[in-house]
Amino acid sequence: MILDAMKNVRDVMVVLYLMLIWKTVEGFKGYGWKASTGNEGAAYCLSWRLAVEANNVRAWRTVPTQCLRHVETYMVGGQYERDLELIMGQVSSFADEIVLSDDGLDAWIFDIDDTCISNLEYYKRKRYGCDPYDPMGFRAWALVAGCPAIPPVLGMFNKLVYQGFKVFLLTGRDEDTLGYSTIYNLHSQGFVGYERVILRRAENKGQCASDYKSGVRKKLVEEGYRLWGNVGDQWSDLQGDFSGNRTFKLPNPMYFVP
Amino acid sequence: MILDAMKNVRDVMVVLYLMLIWKTVEGFKGYGWKASTGNEGAAYCLSWRLAVEANNVRAWRTVPTQCLRHVETYMVGGQYERDLELIMGQVSSFADEIVLSDDGLDAWIFDIDDTCISNLEYYKRKRYGCDPYDPMGFRAWALVAGCPAIPPVLGMFNKLVYQGFKVFLLTGRDEDTLGYSTIYNLHSQGFVGYERVILRRAENKGQCASDYKSGVRKKLVEEGYRLWGNVGDQWSDLQGDFSGNRTFKLPNPMYFVP
Repeated sequence: MILDAMKNVRDVMVVLYLMLIWKTVEGFKGYGWKASTGNEGAAYCLSWRLAVEANNVRAWRTVPTQCLRHVETYMVGGQYERDLELIMGQVSSFADEIVLSDDGLDAWIFDIDDTCISNLEYYKRKRYGCDPYDPMGFRAWALVAGCPAIPPVLGMFNKLVYQGFKVFLLTGRDEDTLGYSTIYNLHSQGFVGYERVILRRAENKGQCASDYKSGVRKKLVEEGYRLWGNVGDQWSDLQGDFSGNRTFKLPNPMYFVP
Repeated sequence: MILDAMKNVRDVMVVLYLMLIWKTVEGFKGYGWKASTGNEGAAYCLSWRLAVEANNVRAWRTVPTQCLRHVETYMVGGQYERDLELIMGQVSSFADEIVLSDDGLDAWIFDIDDTCISNLEYYKRKRYGCDPYDPMGFRAWALVAGCPAIPPVLGMFNKLVYQGFKVFLLTGRDEDTLGYSTIYNLHSQGFVGYERVILRRAENKGQCASDYKSGVRKKLVEEGYRLWGNVGDQWSDLQGDFSGNRTFKLPNPMYFVP
């Protein structure tokens, strides 16, 4: 009788112990919140890319290797262009609401690389950003002046110039080494009618993009310009001081500029 | 002979005219840049959601009706949770790099709605945000105090409290009408150990979220707090003055708070 009771107690203990283990295992499945969805790799790359675009993942040096195909599909499969077109639609709506003054000081800022003109062909050879940044390789590419225009951005650029905005093209590219080829590249791709192309000068060497571009924008504001819009593919184009009344972040899952 | 020649000219004209129409039709296909990808609706909703998360689409009142299924799949199909988990991983890495001082002034800010606790069940009844904002309906829901915790955020909240950060929960909810139910809801879901819950007071009525929250953060900085991180599902949680050393934008494709 006593032995039977002890055996029952032992059985109950074993069951409780197994339940405890089971509970612990369950708890590890994604915080015990949601079962796995199956396609883990694609889901991770979607999360990673969204986090990059929302500025949650910062200072990343390369695209995670497991996301090479995801980024390739995004960039060449049509979605990148669609994303750009939707954003340009927003730029257009915003611009249409602005009543321009007749002092010629209503301004707009565009970044150049992967905003006006595309480095996609170059980055294809760098595994869409899975390879680390190669400053010499990029300079050689930029010197060729063969970056194609990004059509929806060129369309918007032309519209803003036509509407009477003074458009500034502001780039971190070095003026001494890349000034001529950059301007030649822009002109050959149809970027004409802008107010100024502003490149990085000797005094800006070593500045991070955000500080350098903030400094340039500050000078433009001191010249009297009203910076209505600011369009770039990097958060460092859009953050810092005098960032513009409204900023537009173009997608770029291939590289990060601090 | 002359009649034959005239007939030939007419034929050539007809062909040229047809070619011209064809060219025009082609030109309308996505700026003549890229052929259509087929699944236009899904592609549009992907673009729309990315643009919302990157703060390119602003002041939107409702989810586009055509994106109801897209947003539903995103919210309940597992990707929303994965996105949150990746972002919390970034919060965690950032927090681990910080050397806390012993003055007890290292602080972190979390928004409440759809940051700490979820309104997803409510928004399911509002067609995931395809229905317009219903202030009375939302208040009735919030009074029930039944919002579940968002597990990855609760986990991160606990980690930060454990690490010694002073965590402030900052919400646009009205203190008089929703103060009690909000705090009860937070406690019942495991949000304990925070420094303060800060709700909207009479003097903040009518302020937009960005101004109200900037004002609160300014006061915290004046009290001596160092605002290391700021986590919210709305850009209005994260923009304005004293936004924190680093901000983290959680996804929310269901509504926009100006």
